[in-house]
Amino acid sequence: MSEENPVATVAGGGLLDRRLFLKKGLVFSALALSTENALAVVNNAPRPPWTAKPGQPFSNYGQPSQYERKTIRWTMGNAMAAGNGVSCTPLQDLEGIITPSGLHFERHHNGVPEIDPAQHQLLIHGLVEQALTFNMADLQRYPMTSVLCFIECGGNSNAGWQSKPVETQVGYFHGMASCSEWTGIPLRILLAEARVKSSANWLIAEGADASLMNVSLPLDKALDDCILALYQNGERIRPENGYPLRLIAPGWEGVVNVKWLRRLHLTDQPVMARNETAKYTELLPSGKARQFSFVMEAKSLITQPSFGHKLNAKGIYQISGLAWSGRGKIIRVEVSADGGKTWAQAQLQEPVLSKCFTRFRIPWHWTGKPAVLKSRAIDETGYVQPERAELLEKQGAHGYFHYNAIVSWEVTANGSIHHVYA
Amino acid sequence: MSEENPVATVAGGGLLDRRLFLKKGLVFSALALSTENALAVVNNAPRPPWTAKPGQPFSNYGQPSQYERKTIRWTMGNAMAAGNGVSCTPLQDLEGIITPSGLHFERHHNGVPEIDPAQHQLLIHGLVEQALTFNMADLQRYPMTSVLCFIECGGNSNAGWQSKPVETQVGYFHGMASCSEWTGIPLRILLAEARVKSSANWLIAEGADASLMNVSLPLDKALDDCILALYQNGERIRPENGYPLRLIAPGWEGVVNVKWLRRLHLTDQPVMARNETAKYTELLPSGKARQFSFVMEAKSLITQPSFGHKLNAKGIYQISGLAWSGRGKIIRVEVSADGGKTWAQAQLQEPVLSKCFTRFRIPWHWTGKPAVLKSRAIDETGYVQPERAELLEKQGAHGYFHYNAIVSWEVTANGSIHHVYA
Repeated sequence: MSEENPVATVAGGGLLDRRLFLKKGLVFSALALSTENALAVVNNAPRPPWTAKPGQPFSNYGQPSQYERKTIRWTMGNAMAAGNGVSCTPLQDLEGIITPSGLHFERHHNGVPEIDPAQHQLLIHGLVEQALTFNMADLQRYPMTSVLCFIECGGNSNAGWQSKPVETQVGYFHGMASCSEWTGIPLRILLAEARVKSSANWLIAEGADASLMNVSLPLDKALDDCILALYQNGERIRPENGYPLRLIAPGWEGVVNVKWLRRLHLTDQPVMARNETAKYTELLPSGKARQFSFVMEAKSLITQPSFGHKLNAKGIYQISGLAWSGRGKIIRVEVSADGGKTWAQAQLQEPVLSKCFTRFRIPWHWTGKPAVLKSRAIDETGYVQPERAELLEKQGAHGYFHYNAIVSWEVTANGSIHHVYA
Repeated sequence: MSEENPVATVAGGGLLDRRLFLKKGLVFSALALSTENALAVVNNAPRPPWTAKPGQPFSNYGQPSQYERKTIRWTMGNAMAAGNGVSCTPLQDLEGIITPSGLHFERHHNGVPEIDPAQHQLLIHGLVEQALTFNMADLQRYPMTSVLCFIECGGNSNAGWQSKPVETQVGYFHGMASCSEWTGIPLRILLAEARVKSSANWLIAEGADASLMNVSLPLDKALDDCILALYQNGERIRPENGYPLRLIAPGWEGVVNVKWLRRLHLTDQPVMARNETAKYTELLPSGKARQFSFVMEAKSLITQPSFGHKLNAKGIYQISGLAWSGRGKIIRVEVSADGGKTWAQAQLQEPVLSKCFTRFRIPWHWTGKPAVLKSRAIDETGYVQPERAELLEKQGAHGYFHYNAIVSWEVTANGSIHHVYA
């Protein structure tokens, strides 16, 4: 195998077979061994300083390494109201499908309430035969279920609507999307207990933050797969993610996953709250606004390599990224290294779960020439993530929410990576 | 349906059908609604204090609620050497299958080294055609894979060998078991690059802590499913879990999942290190010691309710627990509420993954009478978790490692829960 092209490509620009590394015996890259270095390791000379003295003691609750302090949520608050804004998951620094709870994105309207769970209650009322209140200890006795799913803000990636490509890291651009294991009570169990009247069509969900944030949710969704979550990634939900109780509506835009849930009001029509009229609606080319656009359509993006990374040498790299769909499972992710002229199928990491982040990977041989990397997701409904031009044609150029176009990374000859519309 | 027995039981002691709550319309429990309380919530009067003022601002890295400070790792250090000992995952407080990284159990021999990843290297040498060193940046270019799997210390649950049942919480007793999503490079890829000689049968894995902890691992396992992990639950591994590089041997006892990995030495025989001779071996009834007992056999335990919890009223409860097997998938978990006379099948939470925690749940109607709760796991090899008497018959009464007998919780008439051998 020659150095320039060690294995056969499966698409333009050097994309390699996704199963390449299942074959034993492939020499992947030329990593020079220094014999001195090897002997030094064996003989422990010079001794790495951390082997020379006892390490740190045990800890009750662990934290990341001091060398990973760059891996944080970037926060963007409102200068007029510190608790109004967002913080983003640094997707460019992460791998796998779980988002650590400490890095799950935030979208708050008036800050994070510090709720004492002993004083917090949930009320279910309105068009029900029996209004009910639940304290958090009551809820612990109920049957629970767990779901690994993403939550994505309806406003995620909205810089994509700008006429020029924004040059920023994946997390800052697309990081209002995160994925956790949520555990709680299927909402249909509590609704069955309250006995919903046949005239009910909607639930108004209200949070216990200082904005009393509320939104409307169709009853069908509530009876389908919504849960009232008490746990995130094994432990009780973090305060900024809704402690002690959060409504989880898998696959639907973040705003309906109401945090600090205190009330579910059964009604025959939506409440027409601020966050479903003035916000979280989309201005269409016709001048009309699309409302109640709950489902997050299929989306994908390459996180490695991406803007801010640098390729220091030509050779084989692993392309890695995330795909998800609010309609179900991702069935295929295709990657292009020639700006969309040809595509190759990426490997999907098992388990591939419905409405959950799916990690995709494919090896790529960078010859040192300019390249444009793209990914596109296809979900089990057959929906194909659109190119940007397609999305604009359908939605117009004045959108703000639900941007899910294909993302293009240009790799220049010097190995730097730029965001382009291509 | 009568209050005493609202639905038909499927086994003695009040166990109910695991699919019970899939049926819509079941009244689960009698939660009195106070009309005054309900109106107060609607009218926000009295106003909960956290709705009356802006909440806390955004944070770069989130932490648990101040009200969850009891959910911590309990640490048990060696009085002679602070960095020698263990800390335990508080399984009794957790739900789902993910262990938050901050609560993953620890077992250290000489503390947690604070390794600068820019200075850390991995050496692969010995019976290879080409010895190789890798720095952490090199490894980032390699193909990666993710695996959701448990790690369990070979010494977990060893209080079970004591002649009297220890009364302590699940985490303190069985919490040297945790489950994470690990992402890294399949070890076979790096071994292929080094070209392992046909005379090699073992790898000696060595960590970069102050004890230079080392153990032997059969080459077959390394070529099967071992990975060199850089990420845990999405982010870079925490220092106490091996930052920046950990060997993951799915399903095998914790000690071979070497943290802070700095060296893999290919050999034709094991090194006979302290931790595979003096420790992590089992004294059998014959007086011989069993060595290299790597695989963690199937195990399960009920985490809710368990020692330290209290049932305050009779009625329906959800029994919830964890099962796992180092040999593959859990295919069934059975629960008994009458001390093992009759058993009912629990619901397994999807996804059920190989060598991974599996969450099981089953509803239970507690009539207020004494009961003994048990769970037993069956894995895809057909292995059935043994009763304690069976385990002792096979392994003798002087064991210390690999205790995986059925755990029994006695519920007394006053609702308190005790650990019993029953």
